[in-house]
Amino acid sequence: MARLLRAATWGLFPWRDYCSRATQAEVSKDFVEALKAVVGTPHVSTASVVRAQHGQDESKHRCRPPDAVVWPQNVDQVSQVAALCYSQGVPIIPFGTGTGLEGGVCAVQGGICVNLTHMDRILELKPEDFCVVVQPGVTRKTLNTYLRDSGLWFPVDPGADASLCGMAATGASGTNAVRYGTMRENVLNLEVVLPDGRLLHTAGQGRYFRVPALAFWPQVPHHVIWPLTYLVFPGTRKSAAGYNLTGLFVGSEGTLGLITATTLRLHPLPEVTMAATCAFPTVQAAVDTTVHILQAAVPVARIEFLDEVTMDACNRYSKLNCSVAPTLFLEFHGSGQALAEQVQQAEEIAQHNGASHFSWAKEAEERSQLWAARHNAWYAILALQPGCKGYSTDVCVPISRLPEIMVQTKEDLKASGLTGAIVGHVGDGNFHCILLINPDDSEELQRVEAFAKQLGRRALALHGTCTGEHGIGLGKRQLLQEEVGTVGIETMRQLKATLDPRGLMNPGKVL
Amino acid sequence: MARLLRAATWGLFPWRDYCSRATQAEVSKDFVEALKAVVGTPHVSTASVVRAQHGQDESKHRCRPPDAVVWPQNVDQVSQVAALCYSQGVPIIPFGTGTGLEGGVCAVQGGICVNLTHMDRILELKPEDFCVVVQPGVTRKTLNTYLRDSGLWFPVDPGADASLCGMAATGASGTNAVRYGTMRENVLNLEVVLPDGRLLHTAGQGRYFRVPALAFWPQVPHHVIWPLTYLVFPGTRKSAAGYNLTGLFVGSEGTLGLITATTLRLHPLPEVTMAATCAFPTVQAAVDTTVHILQAAVPVARIEFLDEVTMDACNRYSKLNCSVAPTLFLEFHGSGQALAEQVQQAEEIAQHNGASHFSWAKEAEERSQLWAARHNAWYAILALQPGCKGYSTDVCVPISRLPEIMVQTKEDLKASGLTGAIVGHVGDGNFHCILLINPDDSEELQRVEAFAKQLGRRALALHGTCTGEHGIGLGKRQLLQEEVGTVGIETMRQLKATLDPRGLMNPGKVL
Repeated sequence: MARLLRAATWGLFPWRDYCSRATQAEVSKDFVEALKAVVGTPHVSTASVVRAQHGQDESKHRCRPPDAVVWPQNVDQVSQVAALCYSQGVPIIPFGTGTGLEGGVCAVQGGICVNLTHMDRILELKPEDFCVVVQPGVTRKTLNTYLRDSGLWFPVDPGADASLCGMAATGASGTNAVRYGTMRENVLNLEVVLPDGRLLHTAGQGRYFRVPALAFWPQVPHHVIWPLTYLVFPGTRKSAAGYNLTGLFVGSEGTLGLITATTLRLHPLPEVTMAATCAFPTVQAAVDTTVHILQAAVPVARIEFLDEVTMDACNRYSKLNCSVAPTLFLEFHGSGQALAEQVQQAEEIAQHNGASHFSWAKEAEERSQLWAARHNAWYAILALQPGCKGYSTDVCVPISRLPEIMVQTKEDLKASGLTGAIVGHVGDGNFHCILLINPDDSEELQRVEAFAKQLGRRALALHGTCTGEHGIGLGKRQLLQEEVGTVGIETMRQLKATLDPRGLMNPGKVL
Repeated sequence: MARLLRAATWGLFPWRDYCSRATQAEVSKDFVEALKAVVGTPHVSTASVVRAQHGQDESKHRCRPPDAVVWPQNVDQVSQVAALCYSQGVPIIPFGTGTGLEGGVCAVQGGICVNLTHMDRILELKPEDFCVVVQPGVTRKTLNTYLRDSGLWFPVDPGADASLCGMAATGASGTNAVRYGTMRENVLNLEVVLPDGRLLHTAGQGRYFRVPALAFWPQVPHHVIWPLTYLVFPGTRKSAAGYNLTGLFVGSEGTLGLITATTLRLHPLPEVTMAATCAFPTVQAAVDTTVHILQAAVPVARIEFLDEVTMDACNRYSKLNCSVAPTLFLEFHGSGQALAEQVQQAEEIAQHNGASHFSWAKEAEERSQLWAARHNAWYAILALQPGCKGYSTDVCVPISRLPEIMVQTKEDLKASGLTGAIVGHVGDGNFHCILLINPDDSEELQRVEAFAKQLGRRALALHGTCTGEHGIGLGKRQLLQEEVGTVGIETMRQLKATLDPRGLMNPGKVL
């Protein structure tokens, strides 16, 4: 309901200039009928509110909605839908939870949105091999709830309760990446439907098993789920077998194929977890502390920065009572003794940089409250100016350059007259400047874009990247060119043209 | 000298069937003169002993040698050599230290070998960002010697003192991968010369700086090294900017381009290191211990298995006095207190599985002796039958399947009548069966190949891979097809055809 309401409201927000450049690909009635024949009539919609809802994510990017939305029930149907679109030249936009931040689901050239959330089964858990196979409808919170009694967890945590296959498509990361890596390091295998409908397993073939009775029952309509169809992916921790196709599809943002299952690496739940907040007199002191903690090789699990604007917003929104000052949120994972050492080292470094005392949250409940506040920072900041929309920058720089770029960004923010706050996964050198935009003020929108582009260029000049985890989507294509250079862009274009020769997979994104 | 001698001896070993299928690409005198004009006369050789030396690695694979060998002095020369070969349709085989194990340097279709070892500078060390940029002539031991006083190290360790860019090309790993990952996780950026000579930076552009005086001195011959030419690579720990080109080139075995520099992730030297050996009554007990240690989430840095044949060979070759029994070599890295906990847990698990007591090697010297013995296991096993050559299998399976496949392999080895030993990076599910081959016995060679293929297929049936770290090269192309399936192979072929349209980069390898 909240979704639909938001869709309806945000629909007023002006569409972006991409629309003018878009080629029209409105689908015919016959085509919609053909889709219905594949996935079943209840699983296709051309209702305008549904299309509007699927044509946008949580970003400022607005575009024309898709011409139709389909909900396949299994991978065979995804494959048939792709083959149908391929034969008719209709663009495909994969859709998970719609929590992206770079306009990745906008239907720049029309076409159909393939909503994969009905494929929501956890296909196989192999606790002894530390891996799990999930379909695109499984979100990270669902998975971690499912894993609760297994002694394992999946640590990649971008804040939003995103679909795990969507996270693979975006190359997401988040608060735990400093210790556990990003999706790049935690995806072991992908099942991908290629643009022409063929099925690819990026790191070894899946093996299908069907209930024999059903396998001999060809009359079953396509949209009936085979109850015991499942696939087994290899779960080796390493491989040197041919080109790393998994690596190529992780972070490809739906532009090379549709991810219909992923094998993820799981990690043992830490024996003990301790979380703390620590306020600093200046941004510089907080960021210096981060750099020193990393350089001292303290294995922190999370080290997050929130500036005083964010802390103020979080206090109001999440009913906290923290100091309104640049603050680090830290978390340590380990066994009892190891943890005591880590904590002591971190405290010493923070105090050396002028921090006030650590405020510890050892109990699970207190900890969840703290991290819930961190995860809700986006909504807390939006709530500072009701009616505003948010835009988040996403630069990432080598850790040694972090203090200078953050201090400079803070000053630029003041000078720009924009309202914004800074939060960051500073352990990776990655931070976000969350800017508030009045949807009716096109001049402000331009200032926000200029600010974001300037910040991206500053990161590049410091040998950083314009995006640590949100991806390129629609908004950073110019910066990507500057980042990877002519040969880099040409190489990416060649790869795209090879794997998606008709240019139908999520057109207009990344390149 | 040892190299040359080996080359001369091994030359007698029968060439493989690949030669018959090879198209001839003998280079003309004019072409050799053109190469000399690029890299300078002293840096081109067509001497038969030099060519023979460059046409083979440490494996059983033998093939025709390259038609010429060139030693470029800098990346500009590599680029010019590639462009020249591209225009003339001459194959290129990149060469590092020649320590590969799958025939990756064999000149299946003739062409020129590009020996990159003269480019041997450490271009930039950024200790505060935990990264370093190295040229292809820098080996892992050279790098770690250079890093000695920095408090950092590069942990990926395949045993041989391989070139770091060669390790990137192979997707190498080794004894520390269980804790620190493989080359896939530790390469941050690559400088690659593409087949037509263009320069690609896989994760952000490098920036060149030249001494102005020299930059205005165009008469300097190409083979004079610009003394202050260096490049700065971005060193961010994560990125979501476009397709992961770094991941595509790591493990591509020289078939997509020439790696001329790599940015590597460094790790803090552990505060304390402890190593131990522990003998077991059976293979099953040793492997069960490995699985239980991993499942208990003990963060071992190394956990290596050596069977009783290997232990016997190591005792003789490295003058050790260990039990001749299935043995685990373990290493723990950490701070004092954390280490004590890890060690206690591991000991309890081992004893529960019937191990005799741990033999600890706390002192650095004793530890080096132990790991030197492990690294020399290949030569120790070869020394069991002087005059024999070795062949190493390289399967990797999900950790839970490791006990059954290793016990079965041990039995198969006995039944086959072949002489062989098992060693393995069991913490990753990866193990090697090192088989001894009499070079004059073609029937034995066939039995070895049949054994290796059967083992590869058994690993695939257990959802494993035919190669954990040695790569596909010449020997595992059939197994790769079975592993990734028709669509996987087609996709890899498409990528190869796109990036190397004339098929000149290390032809006949991988695909």
